[in-house]
Amino acid sequence: MKVAIVFGGVSFEHEISIVSAIAMKDVLSDELLYIFLDENRDFYHIPSKTIKSKLFSSQEYKKCDKINICKNGFSKKTGLLGKEKPLEFDVVLNLSHGGDGEDGILSSVLEFYNIPFIAPRTEACVVSSNKFLTKGYAHSVSVNTLDYKYYTKDDEVVVDTFPVIIKPVKLGSSIGVSIVKTQEELEYSLDVAYEFDDAIIIEPFISGVKEYNLAGTKINGEFKFSIIEEPQKTEFLDFDKKYLDFSRTSKALEVDLGEELNEKVKKSFERIYNNLFEGSIIRCDFFVVDNEVYLNEINSIPGSMANYLFDDFNLLFKNVAKTLPKKKHIPVTYEYVNKIHASKGK
Amino acid sequence: MKVAIVFGGVSFEHEISIVSAIAMKDVLSDELLYIFLDENRDFYHIPSKTIKSKLFSSQEYKKCDKINICKNGFSKKTGLLGKEKPLEFDVVLNLSHGGDGEDGILSSVLEFYNIPFIAPRTEACVVSSNKFLTKGYAHSVSVNTLDYKYYTKDDEVVVDTFPVIIKPVKLGSSIGVSIVKTQEELEYSLDVAYEFDDAIIIEPFISGVKEYNLAGTKINGEFKFSIIEEPQKTEFLDFDKKYLDFSRTSKALEVDLGEELNEKVKKSFERIYNNLFEGSIIRCDFFVVDNEVYLNEINSIPGSMANYLFDDFNLLFKNVAKTLPKKKHIPVTYEYVNKIHASKGK
Repeated sequence: MKVAIVFGGVSFEHEISIVSAIAMKDVLSDELLYIFLDENRDFYHIPSKTIKSKLFSSQEYKKCDKINICKNGFSKKTGLLGKEKPLEFDVVLNLSHGGDGEDGILSSVLEFYNIPFIAPRTEACVVSSNKFLTKGYAHSVSVNTLDYKYYTKDDEVVVDTFPVIIKPVKLGSSIGVSIVKTQEELEYSLDVAYEFDDAIIIEPFISGVKEYNLAGTKINGEFKFSIIEEPQKTEFLDFDKKYLDFSRTSKALEVDLGEELNEKVKKSFERIYNNLFEGSIIRCDFFVVDNEVYLNEINSIPGSMANYLFDDFNLLFKNVAKTLPKKKHIPVTYEYVNKIHASKGK
Repeated sequence: MKVAIVFGGVSFEHEISIVSAIAMKDVLSDELLYIFLDENRDFYHIPSKTIKSKLFSSQEYKKCDKINICKNGFSKKTGLLGKEKPLEFDVVLNLSHGGDGEDGILSSVLEFYNIPFIAPRTEACVVSSNKFLTKGYAHSVSVNTLDYKYYTKDDEVVVDTFPVIIKPVKLGSSIGVSIVKTQEELEYSLDVAYEFDDAIIIEPFISGVKEYNLAGTKINGEFKFSIIEEPQKTEFLDFDKKYLDFSRTSKALEVDLGEELNEKVKKSFERIYNNLFEGSIIRCDFFVVDNEVYLNEINSIPGSMANYLFDDFNLLFKNVAKTLPKKKHIPVTYEYVNKIHASKGK
């Protein structure tokens, strides 16, 4: 199988995506084709052998072949006449974290051009990339979340009990997130959050809360789970820490929460995944408070695909690629236009 | 102002979109450029003067100029050398009802290519085109909806009290919708609904429920509402009826629900619209039961833009075009890649 990794994109996590994409070289046994989406939304074919992060920061990637997205794939101009030649691959892995990759833009574009891809489809992207919508969705599928308040820029923010955690609704990797311990800190933290987004959510901050991560997917109707991991963390994961986290390739340690909690975590994952997230491998991050499981967030394109949580990531990946969801065929028949013309007699 | 109307698309409402687009000729005073998206996802430039529905049902549109979507717009090959020449317009009006147009695919593609457009952005499309997500979203923004149950294909469906209404989660214009009055009818209606979608919702069917429509938008932070209309309907609007409804250009009659209910309807609209739907003119359809307002559905791209509900649609349209939401600039700095290289000393 030949996998085209699409990475980069217009995103605050553009750099994370580069690191994550390069890490996949050590993870996937498949042949890889690297397709970089730059900040101008131009696509470049980056040779797999020589790919390294400096290529992008130095802008040297611009010397690589520029390619076009087109029906069923990507193409490259060749020869003197500039004839378009398709790039060969079997499936795209969308590894553009944040922005374009996770907010539904890139999934929609891939769908529009009928390109098979591993990643959440548009709906799942939207639900998981907007923390406010994630809360509403979790509620709809009967998964607990922490209490929250939702504000947009002109709303008055009143906090009764500190500490709280303020999050821009749309960013990942803790960008713009602050823990606010006093009224005095509130205004500054709001400014920081609103710098990144026009809407925020505010949740109670529970110090020392237990966090557990579970990744998984669904293949032929059957859930395939990773181990449950208790991520190491400081007060909360900041961008630098997460950045390094995205290049993880070594196996994580499994944590056993006991039969009941293990089951609750898996059940919550199933409810979230089913069936909006078909075609993707996601990681759900949960809190456990007083023996109850709460969804913290859905990582719809986890760093290096959370490979380190799975026993046999390569096998899983191949099986997901083989069982991607197919869109129902929508026939265009002109039945009604014809009917109207018939009745008008013209 | 020159308006490029994009219509058609891969959708069960493909034909409705054609009718709706042609109706805009009688509605908008702006210069129009018609861009047809066919079932193969090819774009065609259709001359405004000669556009008629038969052009599409006869496949004659294929004789029109095929055009390409590209950065900032659309382009057409000209001359012997096939040089790409941009089509000139100021704003796109996405009038592709259902499918591509309303499920977020087309909005994402327009966003990806940096083309200014009037229509909901991707998030708003997703929330309004999936009835299950609409329910969850309405709940999050404190807008009432009727009770419902959500099922996917393998779930056992148990209905205690008839009649109910069964709806595929993703289609508009009543496609695949049935009112089920007895247990005997249930299985057939489920088959019909599942033919169009893998997920459905089932609601109680309230015979003779009052339905009211309100369209609106937000311009420079201020809501602009249409009149409230009580749509004429048979038991529920079937596809044929809705089809004709999409070409409406004559003014509708205002209904007065009394100050309290009028306010409740408008307040519910504001909560739904704010701020996910910026950049679009939408119509919300409400039920009123026992003096309470319930959201029935969000028409994110209403037929002929619900022009018939507004006093001065042309002025409204111009003002929306002038105040489209801008995406926050996302700087790509390579700060972290550089930091890592510095610390590695290479």
